[in-house]
Amino acid sequence: LEPYRVALYPGDGIGVDVTESAVKVLETAESTFGTFSLEFTNFNWGCNYYERHGILTPPDYAQTLSKFDSIFLGATGWPAKVPDHLTADVLLGLRRQFDQYANVRPARTFPGVKTPLDCDVDMVIIRENSEGEYANVGGRFAQGTPNEVAMQTAVHTRRGVERVIRYSFEVAEKRQRQKLTMITKSNAQRYAMVMWDDIFEELSMEFPHVQAGRQHIDAAAMNFVLKPESFDVVVASNLFGDILSDLSGAITGSLGLNPSANLNPERRFPSLFEPVHGSAPDIAGTGKANPTGAILSAALMIDWLSVDGSASIAGDAIRAAVAECLARGESTPDVGGNLTTAQMTQSVMTRI
Amino acid sequence: LEPYRVALYPGDGIGVDVTESAVKVLETAESTFGTFSLEFTNFNWGCNYYERHGILTPPDYAQTLSKFDSIFLGATGWPAKVPDHLTADVLLGLRRQFDQYANVRPARTFPGVKTPLDCDVDMVIIRENSEGEYANVGGRFAQGTPNEVAMQTAVHTRRGVERVIRYSFEVAEKRQRQKLTMITKSNAQRYAMVMWDDIFEELSMEFPHVQAGRQHIDAAAMNFVLKPESFDVVVASNLFGDILSDLSGAITGSLGLNPSANLNPERRFPSLFEPVHGSAPDIAGTGKANPTGAILSAALMIDWLSVDGSASIAGDAIRAAVAECLARGESTPDVGGNLTTAQMTQSVMTRI
Ligand SMILES: CC(C)[C@H](C(=O)O)[C@@H](O)C(=O)O
Ligand SMILES: CC(C)[C@H](C(=O)O)[C@@H](O)C(=O)O
Repeated sequence: LEPYRVALYPGDGIGVDVTESAVKVLETAESTFGTFSLEFTNFNWGCNYYERHGILTPPDYAQTLSKFDSIFLGATGWPAKVPDHLTADVLLGLRRQFDQYANVRPARTFPGVKTPLDCDVDMVIIRENSEGEYANVGGRFAQGTPNEVAMQTAVHTRRGVERVIRYSFEVAEKRQRQKLTMITKSNAQRYAMVMWDDIFEELSMEFPHVQAGRQHIDAAAMNFVLKPESFDVVVASNLFGDILSDLSGAITGSLGLNPSANLNPERRFPSLFEPVHGSAPDIAGTGKANPTGAILSAALMIDWLSVDGSASIAGDAIRAAVAECLARGESTPDVGGNLTTAQMTQSVMTRI
Repeated sequence: LEPYRVALYPGDGIGVDVTESAVKVLETAESTFGTFSLEFTNFNWGCNYYERHGILTPPDYAQTLSKFDSIFLGATGWPAKVPDHLTADVLLGLRRQFDQYANVRPARTFPGVKTPLDCDVDMVIIRENSEGEYANVGGRFAQGTPNEVAMQTAVHTRRGVERVIRYSFEVAEKRQRQKLTMITKSNAQRYAMVMWDDIFEELSMEFPHVQAGRQHIDAAAMNFVLKPESFDVVVASNLFGDILSDLSGAITGSLGLNPSANLNPERRFPSLFEPVHGSAPDIAGTGKANPTGAILSAALMIDWLSVDGSASIAGDAIRAAVAECLARGESTPDVGGNLTTAQMTQSVMTRI
């Protein structure tokens, strides 16, 4: 078997802890199933690197990573040590450089995990990941004076919007409920969001089996709380997808559970897989980090790497093992268990 | 007593039903306390007007309304009859024309009202209401072609941001917890949101008693669900405030409960009071509409109109009457009762 080359970017805080978990689980799946092979290369970038070099990564980090089949990232950031926009720049930069325009964030409730709402959710949020509100075009005129005007321009291209909506229709079409909800704010943002509406209407013709609907972001935020079960696949701009995916983490009980895939669907560049949670420096190394999001991100990664689907049985086995651990309370304290990160990881491995 | 002149704009759907409730309650408070006097003028604008004239309001509607001391709005919109951006234009236009830059949206839980989360919340969201992401500056280049680029520019002025943050500090200072949280996304939007951060830091020096903190919008959306009790006063841009106020409606049990005030704090123009909920055409006239948001908006209105505080005892009496009705289950079905809109209104009036 030709190994898939995976760049590990554990990052900061609990990112390091959960990356270790993900790698162990992947290695177990690799030897159990023998249907795929992985070769890991570790990159110790992040706050420690910053303290020594004044930058979070070497300047040519994207070029270095471009040679891999995929990237696994733990979590980045340590606000007490590094301004958080520098951390954001690295992540947003990678997503753009590698044209990872579909940020896929599944969110589901698990038997055994208490949730703040009484609900049974199984949704996928697909966030436009390369442009829009995070294009960060703009400026500050007369900065610091009473006349200051700050402009922040969202840049949305038809090509960029169309491809992520099309991808979302394709995902929705393959799911049981075949439902896609697009989130905009086209009643108040009459340029970019109206283009989103136009493109959505055009594409919905091509996918007659998908039940396609639209909501404004304010109503959607409310409906995530009041009727979360009504959502199947959700597609949204960079900003709205960011907000809704954090919200989905809240309703499923812990952001520690949620995986994500930053995909370049054309496979011209490596895709990046990471848990949705942050680096939580306060609990780094204490064994309290929930490894679920990272482990499920690893499962998404092997699904993605084996284009012919030969590893998907391993991905399914990882997901089943995680669900079983959570159902039996073999989990970390954030979701009601009393295991450490390493113990929960071990439980998952045993059940594969 | 010189009467305050109030323009009633009941609007569409249940807006008409709940405006009737608010007026009845105000009239009861007026005759019970004798500390203020109101004179109402009704404007039948909205979808019916649109069907006859092709516009939602007469062209000089702002000039007409400018002569009043305040405006009470029920709810507007009927998507099957009028494109929702036309409805939005009227409301956003009024807010801008009358420089109602502080959109104040209190959100609290009430004993007797079930909420989706188990929590006890008492917060005020203050939304910048005149500029920002809803400035709606931008355009679509090469519209409809594969090369199309749509730009949507948020325009934030230092003056606009400073005044709403200052107002929020003043509100926070007068509350028991004296806590203010500002919401931005300054790690990814490096112009406008960094200016918000700068101004917030500057002003926090002037309010040393207020515990001032910042969160990004994605984290804030999550925290509204995971720890809603941690919020006291929240200040945010037009878009982020819009999203968070709908979210606050979800966590307090029903958007039907929440009032709002669109204030021009300098009192150069009339302020506008309206429930946060929409026009819900499907239940218009059925007696199912919850009048609470409208009645509490009416209470905010008389607080505001009597600059010397002479009517605030009436406002407090209305709030107490509403809370008592909700606690006893004398309420509409959305919050667990079995009264009609008119019956609940009657209960509130009896308890004043
Ligand atoms: C770190 C930050 C830039 C990032 C984002 O906003 O995209 C994070 O919140 C996320 O959701 O992946
Ligand atoms: C109708 C719409 C323009 C409006 C807004 O987005 O401001 C509404 O959602 C609100 O929150 O008052």
